[in-house]
Amino acid sequence: MQIRPIIERIVRPQITAYAHCDLPCGIYDPAQARIEAESVKAVQTRYQDADNFKGPNQTAEDYKARALNIKEQRADLVKHHLWVLWTDYFTPAHLEKYPQLHSMFWTATKEAGASKKSQDPAQGQKLLDAIAEIDKVFWETKQPA
Amino acid sequence: MQIRPIIERIVRPQITAYAHCDLPCGIYDPAQARIEAESVKAVQTRYQDADNFKGPNQTAEDYKARALNIKEQRADLVKHHLWVLWTDYFTPAHLEKYPQLHSMFWTATKEAGASKKSQDPAQGQKLLDAIAEIDKVFWETKQPA
Amino acid sequence: MQIRPIIERIVRPQITAYAHCDLPCGIYDPAQARIEAESVKAVQTRYQDADNFKGPNQTAEDYKARALNIKEQRADLVKHHLWVLWTDYFTPAHLEKYPQLHSMFWTATKEAGASKKSQDPAQGQKLLDAIAEIDKVFWETKQPA
Amino acid sequence: MQIRPIIERIVRPQITAYAHCDLPCGIYDPAQARIEAESVKAVQTRYQDADNFKGPNQTAEDYKARALNIKEQRADLVKHHLWVLWTDYFTPAHLEKYPQLHSMFWTATKEAGASKKSQDPAQGQKLLDAIAEIDKVFWETKQPA
Amino acid sequence: MQIRPIIERIVRPQITAYAHCDLPCGIYDPAQARIEAESVKAVQTRYQDADNFKGPNQTAEDYKARALNIKEQRADLVKHHLWVLWTDYFTPAHLEKYPQLHSMFWTATKEAGASKKSQDPAQGQKLLDAIAEIDKVFWETKQPA
Amino acid sequence: MQIRPIIERIVRPQITAYAHCDLPCGIYDPAQARIEAESVKAVQTRYQDADNFKGPNQTAEDYKARALNIKEQRADLVKHHLWVLWTDYFTPAHLEKYPQLHSMFWTATKEAGASKKSQDPAQGQKLLDAIAEIDKVFWETKQPA
Repeated sequence: MQIRPIIERIVRPQITAYAHCDLPCGIYDPAQARIEAESVKAVQTRYQDADNFKGPNQTAEDYKARALNIKEQRADLVKHHLWVLWTDYFTPAHLEKYPQLHSMFWTATKEAGASKKSQDPAQGQKLLDAIAEIDKVFWETKQPA
Repeated sequence: MQIRPIIERIVRPQITAYAHCDLPCGIYDPAQARIEAESVKAVQTRYQDADNFKGPNQTAEDYKARALNIKEQRADLVKHHLWVLWTDYFTPAHLEKYPQLHSMFWTATKEAGASKKSQDPAQGQKLLDAIAEIDKVFWETKQPA
Repeated sequence: MQIRPIIERIVRPQITAYAHCDLPCGIYDPAQARIEAESVKAVQTRYQDADNFKGPNQTAEDYKARALNIKEQRADLVKHHLWVLWTDYFTPAHLEKYPQLHSMFWTATKEAGASKKSQDPAQGQKLLDAIAEIDKVFWETKQPA
Repeated sequence: MQIRPIIERIVRPQITAYAHCDLPCGIYDPAQARIEAESVKAVQTRYQDADNFKGPNQTAEDYKARALNIKEQRADLVKHHLWVLWTDYFTPAHLEKYPQLHSMFWTATKEAGASKKSQDPAQGQKLLDAIAEIDKVFWETKQPA
Repeated sequence: MQIRPIIERIVRPQITAYAHCDLPCGIYDPAQARIEAESVKAVQTRYQDADNFKGPNQTAEDYKARALNIKEQRADLVKHHLWVLWTDYFTPAHLEKYPQLHSMFWTATKEAGASKKSQDPAQGQKLLDAIAEIDKVFWETKQPA
Repeated sequence: MQIRPIIERIVRPQITAYAHCDLPCGIYDPAQARIEAESVKAVQTRYQDADNFKGPNQTAEDYKARALNIKEQRADLVKHHLWVLWTDYFTPAHLEKYPQLHSMFWTATKEAGASKKSQDPAQGQKLLDAIAEIDKVFWETKQPA
């Protein structure tokens, strides 16, 4: 039995989502970048075991070519979601409190770029870690002072 | 003091994200649709109070025109994320257990279409409720049998 | 001599087209999905004979990689056009008359997803057959009662 | 009783679709441009009667703003589909036989651009007429010599 | 007589262009952001004089609604091109030499976001100035040491 | 020491950029097509030397698959930017003065299509040459009569 889904179902109804748009609508959430990054890592993992994951009408080469193509797109979405957070959500006041803000995003988006060139799930994990760091700061800024 | 951010930070590290791609990578998460739908509702809310939300170099008319435009795009993303879940994640085995599956998605995606035509936040809430129903079923299918 | 082009030219001037948008503008036509699906099958067919179809400055591997990439995009367009028809054109009244409506679209869009993983033109034909079934129902709903 | 749907259903099964991609897959069909252009004209028509077409939670102004936005996108699709036909399908041999080829496409794509600026359905009809001319030439090139 | 076109034609043949992709292909050029920003400012300018710029089948309101919509897209392209330069072109070595790098891009992309909300050409000029600053640094990094 | 950057920095401040949109905003610049075409050629060049350019977590095959994919997108952008110039910027008056206008664009966009199928940088150079010819005519039309 897993504990996560249970806690999650308890917490879920209380969760307010945060995304974005440039109206601005005030909705932001690092989950958008994180979900795409999970996809990047999952693709890297499956690439490593293409023979098992490929379908019956596919060669392993075909599977890998598709994997690379899809990873490229997912990594682009990671970059996009992170850039939006950086430019649109965070303010000079945030920067004062978190002087590492710029470098945190630069690192994370560069890691997303690197994931296009790497088929190693460990690289994907580094991307997820970089996003987790952003996520932590993001939610701190949402807390009451 | 709000209790949500606190619980959330405790739970967060354990959360595994679920998104998607057609490899398939196995990552799906209704949060993608939900976040965009929150944006839809937030835009509807701000539309109703355009005079307060508009910037100094904008008329209220301009603000509303932008709001409609942005809502249109966000609603399209909601539809897209929901369609992907319906077609790519759910299987005939799920349908057997949840006979309301098709109608649940049809209703929700039609509600997303309706949100393009409505500036009423109550409509946006109906969309969020329809997604919450999908979210509940989704996470049930993720639980151990 | 072929009879089709001749009949077609006679009939053509009388044909009113049906596409879509979420205004809604009332224009829908399953031909949009069908044309992209024809492309999917054509790519599968050419993939099977890459050595003949490839250009002089390409290896067969390069040709196949491009074919997979293009098929991926075309299959996505098929899914998009079908989802739009399902959500935007068809109404509860149609569902009552065609109880197979949901399952018909679920099958067809899943087949479009499958075409990303299959290089077999027979699979592409199954996709076309699924769309032809939708096309038939669509045009029946357009006929005078 | 309408004669069109009947003839159409007789003819339909024999129709082979033609679309495109740059593989090339050999599938092209001016119907793609025409369907979007029908949408352009339908939007222009509805714009003229916004009070009747708008939904209950919309002002006529909102309806018109959405109409303009949607028309913009549809007109862009018309241009795209026409440009693809011009560059990808037609060959120097076709040009020799149809010296009006370039000017025919230039006119039609300029008309598509004009439809973004005009709310007059008569303008949309001119766009459809320009596409019909292309369609005629296209199908002639498909006929056996 | 203008001197610019003459100098430009002399210089032009020697100019090597710089753009981008994440291969990486090594081609980058701030001109991509600048051109879209020129478009942003031009739209703001025309918005101020809608009555003169609008076409015969348009109201000034329609013209303005289109202007806002188009400006929104152009500003998004500015942001995209700038983010790509920031993440993909610039390296830690550049940052050491130009410690203002992060803040320079943050300011410029925030200005691009601001241009969606402002119809004032002076705001568009501020965006262009921010890009000019980036352009200057970019070309300095391209010069031989 | 290179002379280009020096001249360029002198000339740069005087340069007014020209891009586009269908408002129309009056901003056009063949540089948009040229920059993407430079990227196409750079990708072709790197494809030829994949073993040197590939990263440590990539096979040469993976690098080539990504190169083809990226080249496909860049070539599409070239086509798009050229089509926009042809349809939106050039007028019947220009055509009278430059009767080669249509054929110039047809050739260039066909060359962009060809670049998807060719991994030879010499082909990419032909594309750049075709764009340079358009660029020359474009800037002539911008000169005072």
